[in-house]
Amino acid sequence: MRITKVIAIALLSFHFAMVQSANPVIIEDFKPAISNQVGKEYPKVNSEGRVRAQISAPNANLVQLDIGGIQYDLVKDEAGVWTGESAPQDVGFHYYQLIVDGAAVPDPGSMFYFGACRWGSGIEIPSDDMDMFAMKNVPHGHVHEIHFPSKSTNVSRRAYVYTPPCYQKETAKRYPVLYLQHGYCENETSWPNQGYANLIMDNLIAEGKAKPFIIVMTYGMINHVEFGKIREFDINPFQTVLIDELIPYVDANFRTLSNQENRAMAGLSMGAFETRLVTLNRPDVFSHYALFSGGVYSPEELKDHKNLKLVFLSCGSKERPERIKAAADELLKARINTVSYVSEGTAHEFHTWRRSLHQLAPLLFK
Amino acid sequence: MRITKVIAIALLSFHFAMVQSANPVIIEDFKPAISNQVGKEYPKVNSEGRVRAQISAPNANLVQLDIGGIQYDLVKDEAGVWTGESAPQDVGFHYYQLIVDGAAVPDPGSMFYFGACRWGSGIEIPSDDMDMFAMKNVPHGHVHEIHFPSKSTNVSRRAYVYTPPCYQKETAKRYPVLYLQHGYCENETSWPNQGYANLIMDNLIAEGKAKPFIIVMTYGMINHVEFGKIREFDINPFQTVLIDELIPYVDANFRTLSNQENRAMAGLSMGAFETRLVTLNRPDVFSHYALFSGGVYSPEELKDHKNLKLVFLSCGSKERPERIKAAADELLKARINTVSYVSEGTAHEFHTWRRSLHQLAPLLFK
Repeated sequence: MRITKVIAIALLSFHFAMVQSANPVIIEDFKPAISNQVGKEYPKVNSEGRVRAQISAPNANLVQLDIGGIQYDLVKDEAGVWTGESAPQDVGFHYYQLIVDGAAVPDPGSMFYFGACRWGSGIEIPSDDMDMFAMKNVPHGHVHEIHFPSKSTNVSRRAYVYTPPCYQKETAKRYPVLYLQHGYCENETSWPNQGYANLIMDNLIAEGKAKPFIIVMTYGMINHVEFGKIREFDINPFQTVLIDELIPYVDANFRTLSNQENRAMAGLSMGAFETRLVTLNRPDVFSHYALFSGGVYSPEELKDHKNLKLVFLSCGSKERPERIKAAADELLKARINTVSYVSEGTAHEFHTWRRSLHQLAPLLFK
Repeated sequence: MRITKVIAIALLSFHFAMVQSANPVIIEDFKPAISNQVGKEYPKVNSEGRVRAQISAPNANLVQLDIGGIQYDLVKDEAGVWTGESAPQDVGFHYYQLIVDGAAVPDPGSMFYFGACRWGSGIEIPSDDMDMFAMKNVPHGHVHEIHFPSKSTNVSRRAYVYTPPCYQKETAKRYPVLYLQHGYCENETSWPNQGYANLIMDNLIAEGKAKPFIIVMTYGMINHVEFGKIREFDINPFQTVLIDELIPYVDANFRTLSNQENRAMAGLSMGAFETRLVTLNRPDVFSHYALFSGGVYSPEELKDHKNLKLVFLSCGSKERPERIKAAADELLKARINTVSYVSEGTAHEFHTWRRSLHQLAPLLFK
């Protein structure tokens, strides 16, 4: 009897463990994501960072939520509405989609963002520091959509230009400029949309923490390169557009301080890779270099950069922060003014890069 | 024999007619729509204006293309890819969606536009006059995304402001302003996105056909009203935002000519309804009034509008053009400077309104 009872308890525990694993206890404090379309209740997020998706598909055989590389099966109710949850996600912004009987489609509940090489759904998992990009009752700068002529590519190219709140009123003042690049399979809309670059700046300026400056964001992958062949990427087409076409256009059409001392370049991931190549090829153009989640500099590489004021290196704690810190230590030993930053609890995603911009901006043009 | 032959021919003809009706001869000159995401082959459009949609959905029971209020069944191939065509559509811009086993979803092939009360798919059916909004090698104005303070609604409100190409360089010059409203279930992005207001202006200015002016586009349906109850719409909340908050912000932050003579208001559909109400309530603010597909003025209503320079009335030929023409005749008899315009071959859709703006702009601020 005794042995039987022990076995029974053991079996029962095993059964509970299985049930828990298949059906984890989910905290029922879901709220609509801030990345939803106005008035849309789903997708929702709970305090664990789980995403709950929902869609009506009465005649479907299987509907899945596809996020973070995993497909989660949703469950159908009697009305034909499918609902289900993902595992907890890192804080910040993630691209995702729904899969309806094999069709990969955007979720009609979310806003659409350019990333993962396409316009599609994205979701914001709340973090403790969302305040940095909250829309507050402070003066707001403008984000200009511009189309600048490009002889080298024979088209008008699009860029977004953030001008700080004081720009429109202080009509004699001139401003420094940060050129800020997106990542692989993103584009010039990614920093102003999911990156909230303009709101991060508005809030920092309102708090007196950053000097007002202009930010210019354009498309950096004029020549496409396969993901596996990034090391073969030819920087020259983009470098020509940036240095010979965009910078002169910005200097002619905005009230810039148009010298090296007042010009910075930063980028995330592939954009960091581009920033690194451009700044090494043209040490005469920028004075502040920032790489978010994409490479480092060695002291040897920067030894002839006479007008260099700042190197900024960052990544998420779930990337390879030790590499960033080690590189910063080497640069500091070589007396190059370097700041490193690690975003706690995030990986190779946009919240790492928003935080990086938020850390970088107060250091620029001082 | 003779009779049998006649019957046989008749039956054959009937059979052909049936086949043709069910499977019309489709002209195989489909091209990717210009409204597609970069690099996406589908949806396509042919010279008849048929839309061909395609999506991979290997496990679906039924996939449909939903456009113009009709659902067209797609056909599945052996690889699980569904393809099919709509009937010919009017030239211009149409909202649409896909339905996968009952799930109404955006087409991942198209760009996304705000209309029909949601961000979703839209498609451009080529017209003979697309040149008016083509991206050409001409100087381009900027579209500023701005966030202006609104005490009456207790939030920062978004607007888009088009500044003409010369605005950035001729830094002493001041400009007239057109306030331009979207329709029901659209928003402040609709005119710059699917309306191409900025490119229409860039091209007209480059051709010397329109005076450079500023265009301001903001959200006009602060207080939502059900579609069936539009006549009960209270204009006051929007009128307060527009007159007491947005116009002062624009005049303080842009180089405007800030008087009635240099201020126009126009709108499409619900935006025309709003334009009509605002201009009748406040005859002291605007001097040029334009209603696109949404109402008319009577001479009696405008008799005290001493500073009125122009009334512009328009609609599509598939709407009620006789009403527009009759109203214009009445206004002209009362010596009110009125221009009417009918967009040939279009209904209550964005191509009617792009053409209306294209006709209106050369008449403004002369």
